[in-house]
Amino acid sequence: MAATYDGLGVTETKKVTLFDPAHPLTLVGGDQLDEVVVAYETYGTLNEDASNAVYICHALTGDAHAAGWHPGDKHPGWWDTMIGPGKAIDTNRWFVISSNLLGGCQGSTGPGSINPATGKPWGLDFPLLDMSDFVTVHRALVAHLGVRKLHAVVGGSMGGMQALQWSLSYPQDLGIAVIIAASSRLTAQNIAFSAVGREAIIRDENFRDGRFCEQETRPDVGLSIARMMAHITYTSEEGFQAKFGRKPQHKESAPGFGVDFAVEGYLEHQGEAFLTRFDALSYLYLTRVMDYFDPFAEPSALDAVRADPVRYLVMSFDSDWRFSTEQSRRIVRRLAAAELPVTFREIHSPWGHDSFLLKIDPYLATVKAVLEADTDYRGTVWSRT
Amino acid sequence: MAATYDGLGVTETKKVTLFDPAHPLTLVGGDQLDEVVVAYETYGTLNEDASNAVYICHALTGDAHAAGWHPGDKHPGWWDTMIGPGKAIDTNRWFVISSNLLGGCQGSTGPGSINPATGKPWGLDFPLLDMSDFVTVHRALVAHLGVRKLHAVVGGSMGGMQALQWSLSYPQDLGIAVIIAASSRLTAQNIAFSAVGREAIIRDENFRDGRFCEQETRPDVGLSIARMMAHITYTSEEGFQAKFGRKPQHKESAPGFGVDFAVEGYLEHQGEAFLTRFDALSYLYLTRVMDYFDPFAEPSALDAVRADPVRYLVMSFDSDWRFSTEQSRRIVRRLAAAELPVTFREIHSPWGHDSFLLKIDPYLATVKAVLEADTDYRGTVWSRT
Repeated sequence: MAATYDGLGVTETKKVTLFDPAHPLTLVGGDQLDEVVVAYETYGTLNEDASNAVYICHALTGDAHAAGWHPGDKHPGWWDTMIGPGKAIDTNRWFVISSNLLGGCQGSTGPGSINPATGKPWGLDFPLLDMSDFVTVHRALVAHLGVRKLHAVVGGSMGGMQALQWSLSYPQDLGIAVIIAASSRLTAQNIAFSAVGREAIIRDENFRDGRFCEQETRPDVGLSIARMMAHITYTSEEGFQAKFGRKPQHKESAPGFGVDFAVEGYLEHQGEAFLTRFDALSYLYLTRVMDYFDPFAEPSALDAVRADPVRYLVMSFDSDWRFSTEQSRRIVRRLAAAELPVTFREIHSPWGHDSFLLKIDPYLATVKAVLEADTDYRGTVWSRT
Repeated sequence: MAATYDGLGVTETKKVTLFDPAHPLTLVGGDQLDEVVVAYETYGTLNEDASNAVYICHALTGDAHAAGWHPGDKHPGWWDTMIGPGKAIDTNRWFVISSNLLGGCQGSTGPGSINPATGKPWGLDFPLLDMSDFVTVHRALVAHLGVRKLHAVVGGSMGGMQALQWSLSYPQDLGIAVIIAASSRLTAQNIAFSAVGREAIIRDENFRDGRFCEQETRPDVGLSIARMMAHITYTSEEGFQAKFGRKPQHKESAPGFGVDFAVEGYLEHQGEAFLTRFDALSYLYLTRVMDYFDPFAEPSALDAVRADPVRYLVMSFDSDWRFSTEQSRRIVRRLAAAELPVTFREIHSPWGHDSFLLKIDPYLATVKAVLEADTDYRGTVWSRT
């Protein structure tokens, strides 16, 4: 597969312990984690002055494996459209870092990990997280890798929220923040969708107050329902219509309450496939971080970045109704009001929120152009909306 | 309560057996029901020539109790904003008929009723239904009540679909069809939302293949999840935002996975309240009828009504994204192409799909004006879009 594939070829997920009892992680909420392991991948080569690194932040259900292939897999990493030799995030030029989030379930410490204090999985005893906690862990990985300063931090959806938070908290860390299909403040509807997904998980009789691992069950029904529902919100009505319309699932079959329409078969597949790669507890923890994310709430939120400007690229997709263009514009307005250099671009795509994962040329070309723009990232006002 | 209430006062739900073993109901799908009981209410007085009747068709979760009060209830009937003395559907003028749907769970025969052949609840042995089956049962009730011809058939959402189907199948029955916030053909996204709701019900471990009544359980978790999710789609993002925004549920409380935001409390309440009035099996049967509804699919669909024109009023709400204005326009285009007298009006409202239940003056005034227009309903082309 790698032989004919025009990309990174085989990539590998590594693990590193970034916090330990001697250097624990203190969370925004005040809790302390005595051990934090992070799974990550890197692509490309760090240059001599360690200045060509680009950090990738993943969305709700992503992982460290952003690009290239893992042996035996049917699909490449989740952002292989974006990252690779000659691609928008060009691994011939940039040293790319991608990690699994704290609270996740793909190698990094999360609620499914063992609580050192009890020797059992954390479950709901795992502390609540904040977007800033993700940034703290990302920074520890950056330091571990010997990177001096990041050329850029790039993320879509919840990944964009991390990029935004990072730029506000530690503007000195990065030159460019690329914030794609994100929000600085979820709407009531956004929260509502997440709330119903969590409810489906928590009320699944196999959830067992979050102790399902010990009891060797899994709230698979709840988690797949949550995923199916969320998936509807990641696609546009137009996209669903173009892909499925009212096509039947089978050529001939009696109508009933099973999979009669193709769109039902697709959703059921999405729900099932999700169970093989995601954990119900991580779903709770990570969605809740988004609900509470509100980085501009503090009047001083922009003080640090105003003193040490980061360049911003904010992008949205016109058919995205989960995190609409209006939500991106709100971010742009806040940044522009602080006189920060921000470029905004709305991309035409019929595929809704998940467009950020797709090969859409004007979108990828814009990211590439911004990362490669030959500009001094301090002092020069680069572009404004 | 009735003393100070400017409306119908106390109303009563009656029951009638419209089909019995000697006169069974044959369904579109070929199955036969040997007993069909229908719950209904009437308001106002039938005039001498039995020509002033208006039939109300309810939406997915409605019932026969459309207006007035039942003793002890905290709320009047579901369309009390629309129906009453001097209101849009003026009970001083019209004899109003409202019935619970076949397949429903509020007094009419449905999958929770006893199957005469077994003496046990039907469960999933209840036959699948079609929009035309609802019309057949409505017509039997009209005949039972001695009504010669309906002045109008009026419905919102799935009620509008029944009005449309009725007008196409039996145009001689009615003068006016009022089709509000409806669709003639669900989109893939519409089907997807219903599919996830059904999945939540069917996969609830208490669903027991639909035999939960006999086993004295109820798939309450699945049904409330389905309702919560559906409820999000009945409200607009704008409406949710105006009503709840990011308001917390409690003044002070530690964040967690419970009800932190007011919108979560509201949804949870919606889910719980639904359990007291609705049945999981009816939810499956009635949503499936909508999925399959596609009355214009047959090339001859409009032949009957073209020969015997019905006047149409089609209405939508600009913030309705469940059955959008575009879906109403599609209905209008089909009717107008057949040279039928059709008036279309899009009403401004921030409250999404559920706007059809609310007191929105231009909306109610339009319905009233159309019902009361002094016009001969045959021959006169009354208004065209």
